[in-house]
Amino acid sequence: MGVDFGGTNIQVGCVTATGRVARQLVLATRDHATPARFVDGLHAAIRQLTRPEGARRTRLRGVGVGAPGLIDGSRGIIHRLVNVPGGWRGVPLARLLERRLGCPCAVENDVNVIALGEWRYGAGRGTRHSVYVTLGTGVGGGLVIDGALVRGASGSAGEIGHTTVDPEGPRCPCGSRGCLEALVGTAAILRRARQAMPHRGRLSPEALSQAARGGDRAARRIWRDVGVSLGIGLSNVINLLNPERIVLGGGVANAWPWFGPSLRATVRRRAFAVPRRACRIVRASLGERAGIIGGAVLVWDKTREDA
Amino acid sequence: MGVDFGGTNIQVGCVTATGRVARQLVLATRDHATPARFVDGLHAAIRQLTRPEGARRTRLRGVGVGAPGLIDGSRGIIHRLVNVPGGWRGVPLARLLERRLGCPCAVENDVNVIALGEWRYGAGRGTRHSVYVTLGTGVGGGLVIDGALVRGASGSAGEIGHTTVDPEGPRCPCGSRGCLEALVGTAAILRRARQAMPHRGRLSPEALSQAARGGDRAARRIWRDVGVSLGIGLSNVINLLNPERIVLGGGVANAWPWFGPSLRATVRRRAFAVPRRACRIVRASLGERAGIIGGAVLVWDKTREDA
Repeated sequence: MGVDFGGTNIQVGCVTATGRVARQLVLATRDHATPARFVDGLHAAIRQLTRPEGARRTRLRGVGVGAPGLIDGSRGIIHRLVNVPGGWRGVPLARLLERRLGCPCAVENDVNVIALGEWRYGAGRGTRHSVYVTLGTGVGGGLVIDGALVRGASGSAGEIGHTTVDPEGPRCPCGSRGCLEALVGTAAILRRARQAMPHRGRLSPEALSQAARGGDRAARRIWRDVGVSLGIGLSNVINLLNPERIVLGGGVANAWPWFGPSLRATVRRRAFAVPRRACRIVRASLGERAGIIGGAVLVWDKTREDA
Repeated sequence: MGVDFGGTNIQVGCVTATGRVARQLVLATRDHATPARFVDGLHAAIRQLTRPEGARRTRLRGVGVGAPGLIDGSRGIIHRLVNVPGGWRGVPLARLLERRLGCPCAVENDVNVIALGEWRYGAGRGTRHSVYVTLGTGVGGGLVIDGALVRGASGSAGEIGHTTVDPEGPRCPCGSRGCLEALVGTAAILRRARQAMPHRGRLSPEALSQAARGGDRAARRIWRDVGVSLGIGLSNVINLLNPERIVLGGGVANAWPWFGPSLRATVRRRAFAVPRRACRIVRASLGERAGIIGGAVLVWDKTREDA
């Protein structure tokens, strides 16, 4: 069972051993925003999903939860959540869930969970070393090295969005300058778009892609610069980690046709030949279900480690 | 038994279970520069070391070799060596040694071997996640994550020296621009020193440190800039990998008093608080013996994995 705990919805789904979402259910986050209500809601949802009318009872092997925030995945403790109210500070959610549900439970940062899902069943399938990068309002990452999620000393590994791409670049809310997120996050892209196309009304990454498709030179230049910045950040990852696959997800990844060429050219120039040839840069393939599927992978890995 | 295969010397040493070099012997690389001569020389050296006159015969548990170049450590194959002549292309050295010596043998890139040594017995001791960075003519790195060396898809992981620190920075021989090595490698430091102090004769990193100690402002500025560039590179590693320890080795690390303060200030500004607080940046502690000690760790780890 995989759970994708987002700011708006909580997606709960049964995942089969082949990585398919068999049944799925959605809860509103606002109705389950405190730890107690979340556990209650999840308990009810799982009962409903494991006992569908007319079907055979599903055996519940475990529950893996991905949530947005600072999480100690090795112990299943939520230090704090982003975009969710309700007193989530230092909550041992994995333990609370295990006590209530009576099965192994694991909790992990949502981007790490998606990284696991894409690695095992998505665009990173078949590799031992796969790096997932999400491109959107936030730019984040999850690292699978030697077939295991890299958590680091305090569970915060993978923050590629806050590696420096241009030391003199724009200020980043994190306090640094020229972070990858400050250059290719949605806010940075839209800021540049507003400057270059002040005559346009509502702007979004999709609208900017459409403008590029229509031949708009300013839009194409913005996407080209996104590709260059992302290419620098990914070249660093390629030289440092020598992964087999880099998987690009998140809404902005849809603009791949517009930023892909300059990204590839930058990687050719900046990454060493040996690790570059070993690495394919591809788009994520699980879409919206990545969080649910990854949650299941997370708890499978946990039960295997404990065994 | 650990072997440090350098461009000038081959250091061979017996390493005890507590990480001490009990006995040591040096061969000249020029006399053993081909694979056949290397295996012969090592065989003789090891016989001599394991049967010291008047002492009890030492039981040989394995031999681990660190060598400079592109090496597939998972299979013990040397793809090519740097600074060593003699036909080292695609040499399955681990297998050749095992056949001749009759014990488990492992071969790995020299920086990775030092990273293992410093992690297990040196300045990275007691951690699960330790990053070693060597500062000298070359700037390289070795990653230990979750207690295991990270090799990556083609054995080239750890190339922190060729991560981009300043995209508009000086050209690097690797073909990129503004790599960490192009900013803080010995050549880059001396180039800046010659520009700033044309009146000086022979310059070296040591002379530049001495000038800084004597109050030379140009020298201090150069070291300060080295600290800033290194701080950017290490902040990227901290945000990406969340290591517990970063160990700085190599000759240039001796200038720590001069580049350390600006390095720390840069990391404070650029790395996230959570991983930054989890990470100590320290100087290497094994010195010249790191390669021998690391070689022993390498082969111990291999025999453990195979068991």
